[in-house]
Amino acid sequence: MRPAVVLFSGGLDSSTCLAIAREDGFAPHALAVRYGQRHDYELTAAERVARALGAPLKVISLDLRAIGGSALTGDLEVPKDAPIGGGIPITYVPARNTVLLALALGYAETLDAQDLYLGVNAIDYSGYPDCRPAFVQAFEKLANVATAAAVEGRASYRVHAPLLQLTKAQIIQRGARLGVPYGLTHSCYDPDERGRSCGRCDSCRLRAQGFRDAGVPDPTVYSPG
Amino acid sequence: MRPAVVLFSGGLDSSTCLAIAREDGFAPHALAVRYGQRHDYELTAAERVARALGAPLKVISLDLRAIGGSALTGDLEVPKDAPIGGGIPITYVPARNTVLLALALGYAETLDAQDLYLGVNAIDYSGYPDCRPAFVQAFEKLANVATAAAVEGRASYRVHAPLLQLTKAQIIQRGARLGVPYGLTHSCYDPDERGRSCGRCDSCRLRAQGFRDAGVPDPTVYSPG
Repeated sequence: MRPAVVLFSGGLDSSTCLAIAREDGFAPHALAVRYGQRHDYELTAAERVARALGAPLKVISLDLRAIGGSALTGDLEVPKDAPIGGGIPITYVPARNTVLLALALGYAETLDAQDLYLGVNAIDYSGYPDCRPAFVQAFEKLANVATAAAVEGRASYRVHAPLLQLTKAQIIQRGARLGVPYGLTHSCYDPDERGRSCGRCDSCRLRAQGFRDAGVPDPTVYSPG
Repeated sequence: MRPAVVLFSGGLDSSTCLAIAREDGFAPHALAVRYGQRHDYELTAAERVARALGAPLKVISLDLRAIGGSALTGDLEVPKDAPIGGGIPITYVPARNTVLLALALGYAETLDAQDLYLGVNAIDYSGYPDCRPAFVQAFEKLANVATAAAVEGRASYRVHAPLLQLTKAQIIQRGARLGVPYGLTHSCYDPDERGRSCGRCDSCRLRAQGFRDAGVPDPTVYSPG
């Protein structure tokens, strides 16, 4: 099987994406990044999900707190119970998906992989600019001029974003069919010290609504607070 | 003065680039990355040069050794006295400039800067794919769909690569006129423990030839070995 690099957070979307990469016939290599996210509990989830799905996991450390500018990496509070879809929220991390895809591209080049999987979604999402089709396409073009493998004709990179046009409920239905262990995944931006989800940030609410709409039992453990 | 982010290694090219950014009317903010390069002595040089040029310096840590695939971050030997121009050398770091520019883009967004400076050069260079005009153009396009600032119409990003079409000698002549303290800069891929240059890697030889061609005294301190 050809290798593919899957950007992986241990969340619902990227876990589904990994299962889809395998269904597409690839040997998925998960890549997670410890970037200073306040919800770095997700990396614990990433290890568990990757193990359950039998995929190797590489973790790269990079301290985006040095840059700041986001509620996910700085001192700002994660918004709770805020309207979704009213502009780009302060949980946006400047250029985050550009940085993550760049790292995935470098990793792919060392694995002789030509396929990158990114679990972004432009339907039930928070409005992040780097989750849109135009971003995915522009990165794919960049990849094919940026690397030795592409310039030497050994690779033609493709960025797969199989969730891009799915609703959260459709993502969950598809993942459930593929056996994604959603009980191990983590989506909350602001979990408590035991990793339990807040239930009130954008990410929690989009996830919970997705399970309801999909008619799939929600295995998420919420903080009692 | 408007802010600009300058990708900065403390080397000859990026130091000249910083001086050009200032000449262009920007307040340059230097960004250096500790990426696991074997020649991390360059970061000591970066501090000295930034201080001498009066620019703030931000250093981000990111361990690209987790990916490997390069003589600069792995166990491979840095080639000495090898022909230059015979293909992409093993000092190429997979997707490095994509990663570095992505970090510069995130930093720029937090500074409300729209201008990125990159000291790449496609004339007297080692053949790296991410030092070519096609790469610079593709990244600029990506930046303008990847960020909140661009999507919300607050920024139109521009990637400046003012050295792209200059010879090494022209770069040095220009920098000398702008007062770049070349004696503080560091280019060698494989310095000794005191930071002295090997004189035999691609980077050393391109630099030394540049000083000769420019008719500018070469202040580089070479290892006696």
